Amino acid sequence: MAQIGFVGLGRMGGNMVARIKRDSDHDVVAFDPSEEAREKAASHGARPAASLEELVGLLDAPRTVWLMVPAGEITQRSVDALAELLEPGDAIVDGGNSKWTDDQARAEVLAAKDIGYADAGVSGGVWGLDVGYCMMVGGPDDAIGRIAPILDVLAPPATEEHGPGWLHVGPTGAGHYVKMVHNGVEYGMMQAYAEGFALFDACEFELDNAKIAHLWMQGSVVRSWLCELAARAFDQEGNDLEALAPYVEDSGEGRWTIESSIDLRVPTPVITASLHERFASRGQGDFAAKVNAALRNQFGGHEVRRGGGTGA
Amino acid sequence: MAQIGFVGLGRMGGNMVARIKRDSDHDVVAFDPSEEAREKAASHGARPAASLEELVGLLDAPRTVWLMVPAGEITQRSVDALAELLEPGDAIVDGGNSKWTDDQARAEVLAAKDIGYADAGVSGGVWGLDVGYCMMVGGPDDAIGRIAPILDVLAPPATEEHGPGWLHVGPTGAGHYVKMVHNGVEYGMMQAYAEGFALFDACEFELDNAKIAHLWMQGSVVRSWLCELAARAFDQEGNDLEALAPYVEDSGEGRWTIESSIDLRVPTPVITASLHERFASRGQGDFAAKVNAALRNQFGGHEVRRGGGTGA
Repeated sequence: MAQIGFVGLGRMGGNMVARIKRDSDHDVVAFDPSEEAREKAASHGARPAASLEELVGLLDAPRTVWLMVPAGEITQRSVDALAELLEPGDAIVDGGNSKWTDDQARAEVLAAKDIGYADAGVSGGVWGLDVGYCMMVGGPDDAIGRIAPILDVLAPPATEEHGPGWLHVGPTGAGHYVKMVHNGVEYGMMQAYAEGFALFDACEFELDNAKIAHLWMQGSVVRSWLCELAARAFDQEGNDLEALAPYVEDSGEGRWTIESSIDLRVPTPVITASLHERFASRGQGDFAAKVNAALRNQFGGHEVRRGGGTGA
Repeated sequence: MAQIGFVGLGRMGGNMVARIKRDSDHDVVAFDPSEEAREKAASHGARPAASLEELVGLLDAPRTVWLMVPAGEITQRSVDALAELLEPGDAIVDGGNSKWTDDQARAEVLAAKDIGYADAGVSGGVWGLDVGYCMMVGGPDDAIGRIAPILDVLAPPATEEHGPGWLHVGPTGAGHYVKMVHNGVEYGMMQAYAEGFALFDACEFELDNAKIAHLWMQGSVVRSWLCELAARAFDQEGNDLEALAPYVEDSGEGRWTIESSIDLRVPTPVITASLHERFASRGQGDFAAKVNAALRNQFGGHEVRRGGGTGA
């Protein structure tokens, strides 16, 4: 039986605690500012803690605390607070979507206090509770050895063909680096499917997008989990996705992937174009379109449209 | 029991005949200019024909002839020859990678002779023999109804989740249109993975590409058949793909997808960039690089390299 402290019981963290308690007898101490989230974790068999102090107090040394909170400021504040509460020999695992260079900086600060730090890139979204979470883990051997029994339960079961559902990919930062690139690849794949279905929508044939996505799951070269989700989306939203706005958010990893491509001088035209298409979907390409229209007008006297519409 | 004539017994056609004879008692009459290919088909239980004339003679009216020959001139010549041999009520199915507008033109010519024409886009490559072939089929109901028993055997078995492994997607041309876009999506997905692994190759961590590709098959958002093949490639070729030249061919569907995007005014930046990266891999971007170097030299006096190397 292993023991872990869990900080952050949102959609991801809450489900992860539920999976650990459902499939093992590991001891989980769980904290979230929301009382409702704590109660839900308790209902799954976790021991709730009402504060970080209480959480640290309920864990046996050497402690391991898994952070599952939004990347950026909240993660940094949680790390800083835990650094004050934990003791030499304890360890923090950041399971969120931190930038890999932040992990490296944190590990250095914590090392001075002899507190270990590991970074786990987690993929699987809301499906992870049932399928298991694919985890790309970076950090020192001892910290990762200590959480291995927890990772074994969180991950999909090992298969003969592909091996285990989590992997120690390298030193601190490597886990989130691999996860960041994973998300960049995801952007590119999504945009590739999106362009294909956009052609189907515009072409002269009356095509059934859901049926084609389902068909492609049957032995085609493009079969994938995203293709399965496309089938599901067309099933649910209809062939024209009529109720959806053409507006796509992004959450950081795509941008960092492109930053890394610049640092490394590795061309990533597809991942870059995919992110830029998301920017364009949010109207961020409109000014460039206005400039193009203005220039055509200047050199060729071509008519411009005035007003906010696209005229589509 | 259905009956079909098969023209073209190469890697694809030969395997398709083998699958039909292995999994059904359908009657297959098979022609290929190569005697060896005919003998192989006969060993699987097909009745060999030494010429198109003999093939047509061995089939009962109304006949259906499946073409599985290289797209372009060879397909057109086969269609023209069959048009002279077949009778009203017979039908041709083009299972190759024809351009969808060629299908439409052929169907019109054949309709004047009351010969049916259907186009089947086939995905699955060398794996189709075992997995089954994913087939996107266009054409008139009667021709497709007649080949349905053959398609049922060639396709992967229907599943409750995704339905049958072949689909009548629309009128003549629609089958190859959907297959063409399928290949465009495939280009984009491949390039997305390629860029991701290129970052792994260049980054500061020593990453194991095969292990990561296998890991991604375990519950990650980017799990796919192409990801599985990436794992297989790194397993076979090593982490650095050292023996491979950075040279990628293309076979037409990507170009036609982009042509269609221009006709329809649908932006396809990812599919387009993927095809252009293949051109660049063949040195077709070199002249543009020379022009860039020359211009930097002209306006800023920046040094140019002379000679053929990249200096990488």
